[in-house]
Amino acid sequence: MKLKRSSRLVDMTEYLLRHPHQVIPLSYFSERYASAKSSISEDLTIIKENFETQEIGRLQTQAGATGGVCYMPSMGRTEAAQLLSDLREQMTQEDRLLPGGYLYMTDILGKPEYINAIGRLIASVFSDKQLDAVMTMETKGIPLAYAVASQCSVPVVVVRRSSKVTEGSTVSINYISGSSKRIQTMVLPRRSLHEHARVLIVDDFMKAGGTMKGMMNMIKEFGGEVAGMAVFVEKKDEVPKLVDQYVSLLKLSIPEQEGMLTIENGNVDEWLSKSLLSHK
Amino acid sequence: MKLKRSSRLVDMTEYLLRHPHQVIPLSYFSERYASAKSSISEDLTIIKENFETQEIGRLQTQAGATGGVCYMPSMGRTEAAQLLSDLREQMTQEDRLLPGGYLYMTDILGKPEYINAIGRLIASVFSDKQLDAVMTMETKGIPLAYAVASQCSVPVVVVRRSSKVTEGSTVSINYISGSSKRIQTMVLPRRSLHEHARVLIVDDFMKAGGTMKGMMNMIKEFGGEVAGMAVFVEKKDEVPKLVDQYVSLLKLSIPEQEGMLTIENGNVDEWLSKSLLSHK
Repeated sequence: MKLKRSSRLVDMTEYLLRHPHQVIPLSYFSERYASAKSSISEDLTIIKENFETQEIGRLQTQAGATGGVCYMPSMGRTEAAQLLSDLREQMTQEDRLLPGGYLYMTDILGKPEYINAIGRLIASVFSDKQLDAVMTMETKGIPLAYAVASQCSVPVVVVRRSSKVTEGSTVSINYISGSSKRIQTMVLPRRSLHEHARVLIVDDFMKAGGTMKGMMNMIKEFGGEVAGMAVFVEKKDEVPKLVDQYVSLLKLSIPEQEGMLTIENGNVDEWLSKSLLSHK
Repeated sequence: MKLKRSSRLVDMTEYLLRHPHQVIPLSYFSERYASAKSSISEDLTIIKENFETQEIGRLQTQAGATGGVCYMPSMGRTEAAQLLSDLREQMTQEDRLLPGGYLYMTDILGKPEYINAIGRLIASVFSDKQLDAVMTMETKGIPLAYAVASQCSVPVVVVRRSSKVTEGSTVSINYISGSSKRIQTMVLPRRSLHEHARVLIVDDFMKAGGTMKGMMNMIKEFGGEVAGMAVFVEKKDEVPKLVDQYVSLLKLSIPEQEGMLTIENGNVDEWLSKSLLSHK
């Protein structure tokens, strides 16, 4: 079907947003719209400028016969700061502190707009990494892992506490929970990861990092490599940590005496700046 | 910032796609682009035509001082048929049949592109319903529930098999598994649903429908109402079903003797046709 520029722009924007981190040949668009490649290139320039001004991502164009265009989602520092500030405000609302010093955040993690934005922020930090999978531990980390994986166009693998009959044969490892020092088990279906897979670990909450460390060992067990680690909230007072080199969005302190909890930004801003700078 | 039409189209498309089922006042766009409302209306006409031609959704414009525009995602019948055919092909590949007559589909449910497309299809069917939440049972249904909820801009509530310390006080009910006839328990945090909440139930797999029935009872327990039910795969031979009026994408038959499993389309096509027709 022959389309005018205005319609092409709407359609291409939609198509690119829905196919992040995938190289789309220019010929795909020129056939789809029955338009010359030169027109398509001009369209892409308009989209590229707009994505960059609005800080919603980069368009990488590759020249040549096998050339194409690839959309890499990212989040600008202004939007990231706004998101973190919203989340901090939500999380310091009263009546979130549960008996035993736990924090109720089920409602926040239940909102797709937050989950998707957090996923976009984490994906921005790692937008330069070649990834083959995103890994998480059931169950609270699952929506976050899918939100990140959607932006990176890679599959999610979910580590479980015990094996399920619907998952076939599994690999099981023991690990020590960092805060309670108890020995625990985690399992992953044997078909989940191939050798040399580059895996980004994502989780919702981290105390000392025992679960993270366990997932790192699980990846080694499969012959893969850890491409990065990211958590939504880390507990500040829980030291020493068993892992380093992780990205955290927020840092939570819960006072020993019943009092106000405090939440501050994690280290994500440093990581994001590094990632954005590398494209200036 | 003053933007040209071409840039406005790119930006508005992105903004609308990211805010489905939300009424956006025209004044928001006219301020954002320092443009007259009449230009914004023309832009929206172009976007609307394009979304309708490409069958990716409808734009509803409301006139008047409080007027605005609302994007309702939907999937056309061609794309839906293609998606179901892809999924059937994936699922009838060899070595998916596990001992005990279970089906390995962890890899398919691990791919965000499938999950998001399935979510878009289910959301299309219910695009006319006023929803307040999407409900699922842990753990396999979680990604699907978020994919549907993202398209509807409502929160997800996750029913669990046992209560978690991080979720505060819970409501617990017993239900009878339809296929094994065992009594089981499901729990939901007390803060999850308000009274009169209209809830769409989503799950990955249904045998006789015991879990679905349990979730229906849970919603009643909270004083809410069931706005609809959808499953990705239902088991065909498992009769009688404990629920009706549900949407299923695929129907699975596993022969008693070890043999080829068969997968056919569920009833989603009828439901989708009804929903699409109501907007002609």
